[in-house]
Amino acid sequence: MGRVTDRRRVLRIRDTSVNTRPDTLVAEEPLEIRLNGKPLAVTMRTPGDDFALAAGFLVSEGVLGRAEELANIVYCAGATSDGANTYNVVDVRTAPGVEMPDITLERNVYTTSSCGLCGKASLDAVRTTARWPVADDPPVRLSPALLSALPDRLREAQRVFERTGGLHAAGLFSAEGELLDLREDVGRHNAVDKVVGRALQADDLPLSRSVLLVSGRASFELAQKAVMAGIPVLAAVSAPSSLAVDLAAEAGLTLVGFLRGSSMNVYAGEERIRLPVAPG
Amino acid sequence: MGRVTDRRRVLRIRDTSVNTRPDTLVAEEPLEIRLNGKPLAVTMRTPGDDFALAAGFLVSEGVLGRAEELANIVYCAGATSDGANTYNVVDVRTAPGVEMPDITLERNVYTTSSCGLCGKASLDAVRTTARWPVADDPPVRLSPALLSALPDRLREAQRVFERTGGLHAAGLFSAEGELLDLREDVGRHNAVDKVVGRALQADDLPLSRSVLLVSGRASFELAQKAVMAGIPVLAAVSAPSSLAVDLAAEAGLTLVGFLRGSSMNVYAGEERIRLPVAPG
Repeated sequence: MGRVTDRRRVLRIRDTSVNTRPDTLVAEEPLEIRLNGKPLAVTMRTPGDDFALAAGFLVSEGVLGRAEELANIVYCAGATSDGANTYNVVDVRTAPGVEMPDITLERNVYTTSSCGLCGKASLDAVRTTARWPVADDPPVRLSPALLSALPDRLREAQRVFERTGGLHAAGLFSAEGELLDLREDVGRHNAVDKVVGRALQADDLPLSRSVLLVSGRASFELAQKAVMAGIPVLAAVSAPSSLAVDLAAEAGLTLVGFLRGSSMNVYAGEERIRLPVAPG
Repeated sequence: MGRVTDRRRVLRIRDTSVNTRPDTLVAEEPLEIRLNGKPLAVTMRTPGDDFALAAGFLVSEGVLGRAEELANIVYCAGATSDGANTYNVVDVRTAPGVEMPDITLERNVYTTSSCGLCGKASLDAVRTTARWPVADDPPVRLSPALLSALPDRLREAQRVFERTGGLHAAGLFSAEGELLDLREDVGRHNAVDKVVGRALQADDLPLSRSVLLVSGRASFELAQKAVMAGIPVLAAVSAPSSLAVDLAAEAGLTLVGFLRGSSMNVYAGEERIRLPVAPG
């Protein structure tokens, strides 16, 4: 497959040292799972083992339990509007006579007729639905020192995490580093939805002078939520995916990953980072 | 709300010390989001800020952008078959005249007519669709030392993680601690689906003599996947959710969390753990 990882240029900041280099990222692409030709689910996944992923998903759903119940699995060519095979659509055919359990076929189904199904289409879908560009004017400008201070501020403000170790946090900060809101949830995307929803209720959208910090990784879905809320800077404590970086670059979002201590990687939108020295 | 955390009894193993105590877990419950009365999405979430979560989700989907477009949000009483208000179904009503963008309303929709929508219903749904009980006969018996060795074995075998820092791993081990399979993905649930799907393809289900180890947290969804594959032991490096523990207890799954160094917490199914001493 050769798509498990992908390489992107990254600006590395380590204290006062700044340099650019290629970085290896985990690849992320949508996969549509069809069951006997009918769209069943779409998941963002790392390409590879796609047939196993589809088969295992159907075990979890109670559809499959024995190898003989599985007739075959194929990639659907021509699933997109231009007829190309993106290797992002698989069809699972069950053996004749296999009883279909009462599963909720409506679950997780996206319509794919118009947009195709690939990373590029996912980026296009965000662009066409976005209400506003990421348009901070004048641009937000952040020093690495300010960014480095945010994770500790988030952790200090987390009330539940220390007790359970099981919650993701999303923190909204001003461009001056002040914590504006903090929400927690068992799901990282839910924590971000809660922050953005509170901003909508206060009629504060777009959040064009703010920084969103998330615990853990930065996926495409999180970058999408930042863009849709008009947030100019997304920072994550851990790694971004390839598709998150692509979306950030296309939408003008500053994406910072591996924000730990005084070091960080800037994957897109580095013009908002006030560098201590010119990149080496 | 008072449901952000939940308490469960846990067996704590620290080297050769064993004791039981109540442990605070992050609460996890399903939330159905309706838009003008029509079911739109279901997400597993931590209760609290549900209206913000629903509003923020609709910002990400491009439906809402200004507070005035939101008429109100209510909990739906009587959404379940017994007419009770589970506070797990919210309806977002948009203001008159708000144009519905072209969103894919089929996305993420579960049918909820039969099962209601609460933690208990989620457990029932697994029980009714499971093909086989978790039935290891004779029971798998694991020493804490064997379990403690698994995370290092998983990390050693991971090829991609070291390069990207962005991948979740799922490792399948024999009851003797031998690594049988390892799959990685940007999504933790996908990594588990890949492991289970490979087992199906090899006609190895149910995986009744094996241990599934996941990086990170153990959610309801991961416990469900273990149960559906007939796996008797699920171990996680980080915390489980309340609903994962409930499912494990009900289904007879051994659930180990915070598996780090020589310490671990056993949340359910402790009869499969060979204790060094009787619990204090």
